[in-house]
Amino acid sequence: MADFSIIIEKLRAIVGRENVLAEQEDLISLSYDGTPLHEQLPICAVSPRNKDDIIKIVRLANRDNFSIVPRGTGTGLSGGSIPGNNSIVLQLHHWDQILEIDEKNLTATIQPGVITQNLHSAVEKRGLFYPPDPGSMKICTIGGNVAENSGGLRGLKYGVTSDYVMGIEAVLPDGDWVKLGNKCVKNVAGINMKDLFIGSEGILGIITQILLKLIPKPKDQKTMLAFFNKIEDAGETVSAIIAEKIIPCTLEFLDQTTIRCVEDFTKIGLPTACEALLLIEVDGFPDVVAHDAQRIIEICNKHNATEVKFAETDTEAERLKTARRSAFTALARLKPTTILEDATVPRDKVASMLRQIQTIAKKYELQFGTFGHAGDGNLHPTCLTDERNKDEMQRVEMAFEEIFEAALKMGGTITGEHGIGIAKKGFLAKFEPPANMKLMRQIKKTLDPNNILNPGKVFDQI
Amino acid sequence: MADFSIIIEKLRAIVGRENVLAEQEDLISLSYDGTPLHEQLPICAVSPRNKDDIIKIVRLANRDNFSIVPRGTGTGLSGGSIPGNNSIVLQLHHWDQILEIDEKNLTATIQPGVITQNLHSAVEKRGLFYPPDPGSMKICTIGGNVAENSGGLRGLKYGVTSDYVMGIEAVLPDGDWVKLGNKCVKNVAGINMKDLFIGSEGILGIITQILLKLIPKPKDQKTMLAFFNKIEDAGETVSAIIAEKIIPCTLEFLDQTTIRCVEDFTKIGLPTACEALLLIEVDGFPDVVAHDAQRIIEICNKHNATEVKFAETDTEAERLKTARRSAFTALARLKPTTILEDATVPRDKVASMLRQIQTIAKKYELQFGTFGHAGDGNLHPTCLTDERNKDEMQRVEMAFEEIFEAALKMGGTITGEHGIGIAKKGFLAKFEPPANMKLMRQIKKTLDPNNILNPGKVFDQI
Repeated sequence: MADFSIIIEKLRAIVGRENVLAEQEDLISLSYDGTPLHEQLPICAVSPRNKDDIIKIVRLANRDNFSIVPRGTGTGLSGGSIPGNNSIVLQLHHWDQILEIDEKNLTATIQPGVITQNLHSAVEKRGLFYPPDPGSMKICTIGGNVAENSGGLRGLKYGVTSDYVMGIEAVLPDGDWVKLGNKCVKNVAGINMKDLFIGSEGILGIITQILLKLIPKPKDQKTMLAFFNKIEDAGETVSAIIAEKIIPCTLEFLDQTTIRCVEDFTKIGLPTACEALLLIEVDGFPDVVAHDAQRIIEICNKHNATEVKFAETDTEAERLKTARRSAFTALARLKPTTILEDATVPRDKVASMLRQIQTIAKKYELQFGTFGHAGDGNLHPTCLTDERNKDEMQRVEMAFEEIFEAALKMGGTITGEHGIGIAKKGFLAKFEPPANMKLMRQIKKTLDPNNILNPGKVFDQI
Repeated sequence: MADFSIIIEKLRAIVGRENVLAEQEDLISLSYDGTPLHEQLPICAVSPRNKDDIIKIVRLANRDNFSIVPRGTGTGLSGGSIPGNNSIVLQLHHWDQILEIDEKNLTATIQPGVITQNLHSAVEKRGLFYPPDPGSMKICTIGGNVAENSGGLRGLKYGVTSDYVMGIEAVLPDGDWVKLGNKCVKNVAGINMKDLFIGSEGILGIITQILLKLIPKPKDQKTMLAFFNKIEDAGETVSAIIAEKIIPCTLEFLDQTTIRCVEDFTKIGLPTACEALLLIEVDGFPDVVAHDAQRIIEICNKHNATEVKFAETDTEAERLKTARRSAFTALARLKPTTILEDATVPRDKVASMLRQIQTIAKKYELQFGTFGHAGDGNLHPTCLTDERNKDEMQRVEMAFEEIFEAALKMGGTITGEHGIGIAKKGFLAKFEPPANMKLMRQIKKTLDPNNILNPGKVFDQI
C-alpha cells in the first residue's frame, strides 16, 4: 500500500492543486453510484485538464501502485464507477464539449462528459438524430454510455450505443494513447480494437474523445399506450407486431405493480386495474408511421387490448413516455431499497420470462415490479425491499439467481444494458463458460498487467 | 521445420484419409485467392468434419509447429487466405448449412461456408433481408465475410457485415472453443469479445458458426442511373443527396474508363461519352421510395446530370445493377494484371479523392479505372497493368502509396472493405500509429503465442 498523502501531492503536481479533492465531505458523493448496496471512499478525486494529465496519472498509478476509477456523473447501475480499496476517482464530467457536428458526414465529435440529452438537443436542432436514450439520459454522460454500451427505449429499432460509435480516443492502462476508428463508414485496416473498449466498463482504457454516427431525424412519430387484462396478451402482442415485420422504435412493457406506482406518482390517469401496459412508438416517414400505427392498433385489439390510447400532440406523447421513464423512480418510493435488474431474453421469450419472474417472486415472498424494453427482450425486474432486513436480502439474492438462470436457459443474458460492474461479477463468474472468462482475463492482463484501471470490476483478475 | 509427411499422416488420423489433399494438382488452386501478385503452395489441405476436428488440428499445430490458414472460397482481395511458408489450408466451404432462420427473433444461424447469395435467397423467401452484399456475393462465403468484415453496395444505408453479426462460435489458437453473443438485441455481460474476431482476417480464431441479425425486407425499391459530363458534378450530387437527409441503399460511382469497359463487356447501352455515372437505389416503404426517388432526380438535374434513367421493371433494375457489379470483371479484360484497391474517405471527400486519383495516375503514367461506393466514401481505384513490366509495377506501387497517403490525409483509411492481408501489410505498418500497432500485436500475441493461425497476415508478429 502506497502512502496516500504522497500520492495526493504527486497528483496535485500533475493537474494543479485546485483539481484534486481530498476532503471526506467532497469524496462521499463519489463513493457510490446508482447501484444499491455498494459504496467505498476513494483516496481522492482528480479532475484532469487534458489527455496529457491523464497519461501522467496513469503512469504514476503504475509506478506508485494505486488504481484509477474513471467517472462521469455516476448514474451506473452495476457499480462500475464505485472506487476500489486503493482507488482515485478520475472525474470526467467537466469534459463536456461537443467539438463538432459534421452535417456532411453525419457525425458528432464529443468529449466523454457530454450529457446524453444535451447531445440529443444539439443534433436534433440540425435535423439529425442520435438514437441511444438510456433511462438516465438527462444526467448521464456519453463516456459512461460508451463504457457500459448503454441501451435505452429505442434499442429495438435503432440498436444500442455501440451501433453509433465510429471512433474513440483512449488512454490505455500503460499510458499509451490510441485513436481508433474514423469518419469512414467502412474501415477494416487492422484488427477491430475500437469495439473492444465499448462496453468494457472502464477496465481497459480511459476514453478521452468519441466520434459518433448520427442519422437523419425521423420526420414523424406516433405514440400509443395499450392496456391489457392479461400479461400473456401483452407478450403476444409484442411478438405479433414483430412477426408483422413492423419494427417500432419503442415497445415498452409495464406490469401492474409498476403501473400503480407510476399512476400514484404521476397522476396521469393510467387504468390501475389492468395487468399490463405497452407503450408503443413508431417513427419515420409520415405515411409509414400512419400505416404502422394503424396495423399496431389492429394487432393490439386482436390480442384483447382493453383500450389503445393515442397521443394527439407532442406534449401528450411526452406525457405518455414520462409514464414509462418514471417507472424506476415511482417504484423506488415504495420501499427503502430498490434493486433494478436487467435480465434479458430473445424477444420471443418475453412472455415466458414475465411469467417466470412472477413465479419466482411468489416463491421467495418478494415484491417485484417489472417493466422494460419488451420489444428487445430487455426486462427490468425490480425488487422492492429493505437492505436492513437480512433474511429478506438473502431471499432477494436467491430470487435474482433464479431469474438469471431462467434467462440464460432461454438463450438470454444476465445483463442487457447495465453491465456487470461489481454488482453482478459473481453471477458472471458463475454462468459464463470458463473459456470465455479465460479470454476476458487474458485481454485485461495483456492491456493492464498491473491491474491499475478500475480493478475488481467485471471479474477479479487472477 | 517439421517433417511434412508426418504432419500429413497425423492430420489424416484426425479427419480421415479422404479429407486431406496433399497432391500438388489439388493444392495449386488453394495457393492463391482473388489478390494478384501473391501465391504460395500449402503443405496440404484439410476438410474438418466438425469442430472437434478443428480443435485437434489447432492443438497439433501448436505441438508440431505448422500453421493454419482458414479458407472459404478464396475470393479475398488482400491475400488473407493465401498460405504462408509452413501452412496447411483448413477448408470450410463445405460447412454450408443454414441451420435455422428464426422469424420471431429475426436471426439466422449458419455455418461459415454458406454462400452469401444463398443466404440472401433463403431469407428473402420469408420476407426477411440480410443486407451485406459484397461484390463477390455469388461465390464468397459468410465466414469469409465475417473474417474480413465485408461491405458491399448497400453499406451506405445498411452498414457492413459487423452490423449483422450477433454471435460467433470460434476455435481459438490455443484450442479453446468459445461461443460469443446470442439472440439478445441487448447483451453487455462481460467485455465485448465477439467484435474482436469480426474483421480479424483469420488471425485470432477459426469461426465455426455464425448468428446473424436479419431485418424485414424492404417493400419496394427503385433503381436509377444518372450520367454526368463532369466528375465534380457526380461528386457534388452525392453530397447533396446526403445533405437532403436521404439515405439511398446504394449510391455507386463509375468513371469513364470503367463505363467504357463495362459497356464493351455488357452492351447494355451506357453513354460512353459521359465522364461519370451514378447508380442509385432507394428502398423501403413504397411512398417513401417514390418521394426519395423524385427528390433524387431533382438533385441530379440540378447538378447537371445529362440524363437520369429509371428501371421500369425488376429485370431492368437487375440489368442496371449488373452494369456496376461487372465493373471489376470488365476492367480486368483490358490488361493482364488488374490491381483493385479500396482507399476510403469520409463521404464528403469523395470528389477531392477522385480528382487526386486522376492526378496521381497521370503523374505515374498509369491507366486507372475508378468505381465504387461513392455514398460511403469507399472507392475502388483499379490499376490496369502488367505484372511482367517491372518498371511499371514500381510506378504502380508508388502510385498506390500516394493514393493511400491522400486518403489518410483526408481522414480516410487504406482499406474500406478488403482488409490488409499480405497485400497491404507494408502500408499498415507504415501508416498506422505505433501505439495502435503495439496494441494489435499484443492481442495477437496473447491469443496466439505460437503464431499458428494465419501468420504473417495483417502484420508480422515480432
